[in-house]
Amino acid sequence: MKKIIFIGAGNLATQLSSAMKEQGYDIIQIYSKSLKNAKILGSSLSCDYTDDLNQIKDTADLYIFSIKDTALQECIRSVKPNKALWVHTAGSIPMSVFEPHAKRYGVFYPLQTFSKNKKVNFSNIPFFVEANSEKDATLLTDMALKISQDVRVISSEQRKYIHLAAVFACNFTNHMYAISEKLLKEHGLPFDILQPLIQETSDKIKKISPVTAQTGPAVRYDENVMNKQLSLLKDDQLKEIYRLLSKNIHAFAINISHEQNKL
Amino acid sequence: MKKIIFIGAGNLATQLSSAMKEQGYDIIQIYSKSLKNAKILGSSLSCDYTDDLNQIKDTADLYIFSIKDTALQECIRSVKPNKALWVHTAGSIPMSVFEPHAKRYGVFYPLQTFSKNKKVNFSNIPFFVEANSEKDATLLTDMALKISQDVRVISSEQRKYIHLAAVFACNFTNHMYAISEKLLKEHGLPFDILQPLIQETSDKIKKISPVTAQTGPAVRYDENVMNKQLSLLKDDQLKEIYRLLSKNIHAFAINISHEQNKL
Repeated sequence: MKKIIFIGAGNLATQLSSAMKEQGYDIIQIYSKSLKNAKILGSSLSCDYTDDLNQIKDTADLYIFSIKDTALQECIRSVKPNKALWVHTAGSIPMSVFEPHAKRYGVFYPLQTFSKNKKVNFSNIPFFVEANSEKDATLLTDMALKISQDVRVISSEQRKYIHLAAVFACNFTNHMYAISEKLLKEHGLPFDILQPLIQETSDKIKKISPVTAQTGPAVRYDENVMNKQLSLLKDDQLKEIYRLLSKNIHAFAINISHEQNKL
Repeated sequence: MKKIIFIGAGNLATQLSSAMKEQGYDIIQIYSKSLKNAKILGSSLSCDYTDDLNQIKDTADLYIFSIKDTALQECIRSVKPNKALWVHTAGSIPMSVFEPHAKRYGVFYPLQTFSKNKKVNFSNIPFFVEANSEKDATLLTDMALKISQDVRVISSEQRKYIHLAAVFACNFTNHMYAISEKLLKEHGLPFDILQPLIQETSDKIKKISPVTAQTGPAVRYDENVMNKQLSLLKDDQLKEIYRLLSKNIHAFAINISHEQNKL
């Protein structure tokens, strides 16, 4: 499995293709519906590129579909069938999306957040692979092991929950950062004062379970502080987020203390 | 300002007193309403300890009140007045809480999350100080500069917003981790598979503004994925959190693109 074509030139495709090239894989073509994006990535990999689905070569051993979930199904149907292995890189889409269009298919899902301009170190990123044959699952596992030390074969069903958990741990977490930045900005304060706190918060949970690591007014259910803080928030959606998360933090804390009492 | 008494023996008092002792300050006494906690901290600092407010010595240069917000006001009233400088370490409480009980007073607020058993490196933790006289503000600044390189004099008004932002950036962020841990656990998956994602998410915003760094289904407003993920959540509060945060992520994204169009 040496020759690879990427269908997609987004954040993930950009990072993954470059990591695979470094490992000696031959990326022979990039497709993107945006010719500009196809060209940028194709040029950086010194390979062919196209924005025409009909021009996708049939000589690759592996086709990696790394495009928006909404476009994936239609895109799969538009690529001429062949005997190669087809995989996608999406968290929430079952492997069966390739049926009946491809004979050999699977999933190659790296659990990470990707930006085009921030190079990612793949070595400790978990890869979740799956294929419709044991042989191809082994091929994908071996390939993933060339770029990461953490590779697991996992079902589409479990992968859905991994993706859901990732939305909380990454996208929703990042949104908490965005809200805090907004609140500081509105009061003439720089976001960077929060950096040590943010780093310590993410660092702590390497050793302590997050539910145990919780601090602050909500876990103490200090209504005095919570009400004062609510009154500082002018935006109704932010007020509602504050209320709801405080309530849920408290619910988790009660749950934990019940579990501990049972032991 | 050499002799210091800590009123309180919680997470913050434990970490701060030990860091100050390392810098040569003389911690002469620990008060806690829990004799057990007073003893643990007093012993680790090799100093006197008490659970009796009447036994608090009047020979210190500085009294650091580091106790629950709800108990602070009453505790201040119960300590015999003296000529030393009194400060608290709370984010949400105005400096005026010391009026009219103390003549010299202020705030000494380190912006960090503290656990008793995880030693904190204070060197880059922002300290926000405030005092009712310029001389004492300088004393507190100099003291903070011995343990951290980031010290700022800031008003009680601004400090409130810093604390509010910190609740989002730390407590609410940590709760996102707790939810993701719960979701994985329920499906037989270990929390540690999220570590690289969590570390990258907190790392990214050292260089990129969080609102720009956002990825995932909500910022794309991919309703297909969002609805599928909502259907995986069985808990009503978690469903509501998912809905509300996705909506707010989308609102932030629209706002940013409006701002960019204006430029």
